[in-house]
Amino acid sequence: MHCDTVWHNAHLMTLDDASGGLGIVRDGIVAARDGRILYAGPAAGAPAFDAAQRIDCGGRWIGPGLIDCHTHLVYAGNRANEFEQRLQGVSYADIARAGGGIVSTVRATREADDAALLKATLPRLDAMLAEGVTTIEIKSGYGLTLDDERKQLRVAKQLAQLRKVEIVPTFLGAHAVPPGRQAQEYIDEVCGTMIPAVATEGLAEAVDVFCENIAFAREQAAQVFAAAHAHGLKIKIHAEQLSNQHGAELAARHGALSADHIEHLDDAGVLAMAAAGTVAVLLPGAYYFTRDTTPPPLQKLREACVPLALATDSNPGTSPLTSPLLAMNMAATLFRMTVDECIAGFTREAARALGRFDRIGRLVAGMDCDLAIWDIDAPADLVYRMGFNPLHARVFRGQQTPPASPHCNPLE
Amino acid sequence: MHCDTVWHNAHLMTLDDASGGLGIVRDGIVAARDGRILYAGPAAGAPAFDAAQRIDCGGRWIGPGLIDCHTHLVYAGNRANEFEQRLQGVSYADIARAGGGIVSTVRATREADDAALLKATLPRLDAMLAEGVTTIEIKSGYGLTLDDERKQLRVAKQLAQLRKVEIVPTFLGAHAVPPGRQAQEYIDEVCGTMIPAVATEGLAEAVDVFCENIAFAREQAAQVFAAAHAHGLKIKIHAEQLSNQHGAELAARHGALSADHIEHLDDAGVLAMAAAGTVAVLLPGAYYFTRDTTPPPLQKLREACVPLALATDSNPGTSPLTSPLLAMNMAATLFRMTVDECIAGFTREAARALGRFDRIGRLVAGMDCDLAIWDIDAPADLVYRMGFNPLHARVFRGQQTPPASPHCNPLE
Ligand SMILES: [Zn+2]
Ligand SMILES: [Zn+2]
Repeated sequence: MHCDTVWHNAHLMTLDDASGGLGIVRDGIVAARDGRILYAGPAAGAPAFDAAQRIDCGGRWIGPGLIDCHTHLVYAGNRANEFEQRLQGVSYADIARAGGGIVSTVRATREADDAALLKATLPRLDAMLAEGVTTIEIKSGYGLTLDDERKQLRVAKQLAQLRKVEIVPTFLGAHAVPPGRQAQEYIDEVCGTMIPAVATEGLAEAVDVFCENIAFAREQAAQVFAAAHAHGLKIKIHAEQLSNQHGAELAARHGALSADHIEHLDDAGVLAMAAAGTVAVLLPGAYYFTRDTTPPPLQKLREACVPLALATDSNPGTSPLTSPLLAMNMAATLFRMTVDECIAGFTREAARALGRFDRIGRLVAGMDCDLAIWDIDAPADLVYRMGFNPLHARVFRGQQTPPASPHCNPLE
Repeated sequence: MHCDTVWHNAHLMTLDDASGGLGIVRDGIVAARDGRILYAGPAAGAPAFDAAQRIDCGGRWIGPGLIDCHTHLVYAGNRANEFEQRLQGVSYADIARAGGGIVSTVRATREADDAALLKATLPRLDAMLAEGVTTIEIKSGYGLTLDDERKQLRVAKQLAQLRKVEIVPTFLGAHAVPPGRQAQEYIDEVCGTMIPAVATEGLAEAVDVFCENIAFAREQAAQVFAAAHAHGLKIKIHAEQLSNQHGAELAARHGALSADHIEHLDDAGVLAMAAAGTVAVLLPGAYYFTRDTTPPPLQKLREACVPLALATDSNPGTSPLTSPLLAMNMAATLFRMTVDECIAGFTREAARALGRFDRIGRLVAGMDCDLAIWDIDAPADLVYRMGFNPLHARVFRGQQTPPASPHCNPLE
């Protein structure tokens, strides 16, 4: 059978396992044609491939390219100064009074033009690619005006022209009440003006909302979901991070792809998510960075068979994290997620959280050939180590590149 | 004035600050001759240098090369499988019964020859170098026989031939009671045979001991210190990690360079360390990875003016961490150390913990020219971010190399 590339002498994590495991194949091969997987399975018994290129993986492990399904990667400025002040004992209130917090990121993002935003974002994206990310979701939410939200989404899309990566843009106009506005009046604009514009211009494929006592109420989230549906956009929610607002339950009833954070989710929320097939996106980086002490109700989510995804939540305020591997370690160490759950959380389940279950996140014939090739002895190595990157190579749509290190990125 | 290299258009963290700060110089230069710093200070008013090479740092920040003053970097095998089992609910007791725990690392390290140990260690060292490390302490302690301890120390020294880095070898024969031995009988061998041999052969410059209810008693630590002193070796201690054994106090009274971990240190221990000038080496990676909940008594250490160093404690059992930057973030997030304390902990104070205060860890004329050049806006960026490496270049003894990324290491 003719194909473009065969990767051989490798072990596979196919993630194709009905029981939720890693779908391990020892001594496997992957064959690709036209950017898609033609075959992924045991070398023994594989079809005879007539390949233009054969790549010997030297006994390494091949898994799906990583998928980061929840990030706020595009923003200007950073909040290292606030972090420093907090360590010196300055209160959140004093920082907010001095113009800090999310307001400072909104200000910097509004002031930046497309080129400046792109320049600020690229090193963060490159750090992700260096760890084998092939798909990344990016939310707006630091513009909070139609034009500034547009700008964030436009820059997110531009990233896919500059790097070999799939970008999934999400509109998060309902991230915070903009300075000087009233929540309800702003939500009316989000629903009446911004969502229609974003949908018409094809700038996002989903709408997210931050449902919390410091952000938007459940009824406002419901209004956002209705507008999203009316314009053919999928929905997601930031829910139950600081308190139980029953936002995940609401989102599930609206058919949300995912409910994210959910540390304070209750039993009704778990059941609603299970019934709707809404993915739980857990964000251990924010949990760690904000020194949260209430972990998500993992055992209940497992028992209800709610799909579990993981993401970095990369953002300047509560999770300045650009390492999926570190997010896996945090999920294991802090939430006691298993190795299989951590790896599936950044592949198969992350694909599910992005509505791409049938196209990426597993090594299955017909799916996109996005691979991460790892220099490891066993899958557990990916989760166990801290601050070590064993990526050997990344493959995007069938094309292999050396690791996209921020320091020797061949794409730059 | 003639010199080899001038780095200009940079901001400096000299760490030369009597009040303990970062010694920041905006618009500074560093000049080096014969591997040493000739000048580090403001560009305005600097001597006129006739330099063979001038390097424009483009407004980046220059600080001392990082110093990791507590690691167990040389070992074979890894313990990812145990980590995975623990997440699946297997108890420590069952893992130990199946030959796991430190015993498994001892077995693998004994079985490995020099070449295999070197091969296993190099990727870990390269990860450290990629983050700007120029000096690293490496302990033995997984051999637990004279020959196997010798092998670990020999391999540690060999690393300095293969990479541009200073290695500080420490003998930690008293790391654990070897399988099948009695503690006192083994300590007698450590003191009567191993320490004399290590000293005679120049294999280590300090002796360390793990003083804990699961390792060696206070009296045995005292015996080790006496033997070390008798053979002209400096001393260090792993103390008060799991319980208060008053080991740090003992070590301080014996003039120890440092007492490390010290989560359970009491007031008497703090005062003894302060009186002796013994450095507190804090190890947040192990604290995080073992899910410890008792942080070291930071405020008391500060009030007593005990010098505070930080290290990765890189080891397979309790801290599989190869990122000094992540250790800084953990120290800030989990221990509430300030940005200045975190950076000083991996430079000036780490040098102090290794008995090298006068030679490395600060940018001061006459000291070794070991630099880390960072692509950051402010020092706080080094501590605030998680899983991001902003190293632009590393300078060892006056020679600049591009970042020693594991993937594009020019030294390999
Ligand atoms: Zn978020
Ligand atoms: Zn240690």
